[in-house]
Amino acid sequence: MEHRGISRAVISRLPRYYRYLGDLLEEGVERISSNDLSKKMHVTASQIRQDLNNFGGFGQQGYGYNVKYLYTEIGKILGLDKNHNFIIIGAGNLGQALANYASFERSGFILKSLFDVNPRMEGVAIRGIPIRMMDELEEFLQQNEIEIAALTLPKSKAIEVADMLVANGIKAIWNFAHTDLNLPKDVIVESVHLSDSLMTLSYNISRRNEGNKK
Amino acid sequence: MEHRGISRAVISRLPRYYRYLGDLLEEGVERISSNDLSKKMHVTASQIRQDLNNFGGFGQQGYGYNVKYLYTEIGKILGLDKNHNFIIIGAGNLGQALANYASFERSGFILKSLFDVNPRMEGVAIRGIPIRMMDELEEFLQQNEIEIAALTLPKSKAIEVADMLVANGIKAIWNFAHTDLNLPKDVIVESVHLSDSLMTLSYNISRRNEGNKK
Repeated sequence: MEHRGISRAVISRLPRYYRYLGDLLEEGVERISSNDLSKKMHVTASQIRQDLNNFGGFGQQGYGYNVKYLYTEIGKILGLDKNHNFIIIGAGNLGQALANYASFERSGFILKSLFDVNPRMEGVAIRGIPIRMMDELEEFLQQNEIEIAALTLPKSKAIEVADMLVANGIKAIWNFAHTDLNLPKDVIVESVHLSDSLMTLSYNISRRNEGNKK
Repeated sequence: MEHRGISRAVISRLPRYYRYLGDLLEEGVERISSNDLSKKMHVTASQIRQDLNNFGGFGQQGYGYNVKYLYTEIGKILGLDKNHNFIIIGAGNLGQALANYASFERSGFILKSLFDVNPRMEGVAIRGIPIRMMDELEEFLQQNEIEIAALTLPKSKAIEVADMLVANGIKAIWNFAHTDLNLPKDVIVESVHLSDSLMTLSYNISRRNEGNKK
């Protein structure tokens, strides 16, 4: 599938649709109208109709959307119909928090190992998944098909480790380190910069407080 | 300050400028040209000039930007010249990871307490900051000036806790729970949806893999 017709803006909204449709499925809802979905998601019904028209899956007028069908189709576009093996580099609190999200597994993200430099972590397992030492990483990558590496380690180490991962065939990085990574173009990097997010919050507080003073 | 002239797009780029300027300051760099900053940040020099012209702080042609001045000015716009007291609700791995980011403190975000329901956590401290029990939260909010609450707790509890926080005067929420919060308009919510980010990564992997097949 190439989704030629689907705009970047629609794509950016898909994870949120997927989340709401998943919640509806869990609640046992089989069909939902754009109006009802609109009330839940706090976006206009016409936006929902426009977005979801890209994927079909809508029955006759007045019958609403088939929740399961749409959930599955959007999942396919997001690549969630395939499994993605991943590892976590840095088994500190953040790495362990990610390792404990069992819900990632339900979306096809299979955690194969964590890695750390702290010898006290050696042999410790999280949900049965072992923490290995960094000096085992290269061999591990050669012997296992790993698609994604999550980087939950200090900024000072992140760039060097990312280069090493790429040299060993990793093609996608989920970066939590407080730095940008400049990697070859065919490596996909998705960064979560927590402090950028906190600064956005702080900016919005300032703006609101200034507004209140007027 | 009201930043009437500064567009939303520029504002969204400020945390990244702030991060790079902070790195330069740490390296002892006093001035930098838009060309050098452009190479570091991988954006065009003309974009940088346009963005930073909003804040002044550029010396004579050819002298480059005054790093410290720009860093300070952008910090003010982001509200980082004031302290923001915050608490963390949910002292699991993710809550503890946030509590361990000492760098938040340097930006004025002062962590006052963590809260959890797990009695084994009672009295435990992280970097000297105590974990309290949830039944102490209401009284704590009445006796302390807290501006921001970070929610690092399961989705099933997040909505109820957010409502309680707002009822007790919290006006800004940094939400890590896997759900949207529908709160009064004057409450600022900044959400970090980790699974949305992982799905964006997965979408980009699929798209690249399809591209490679052609």
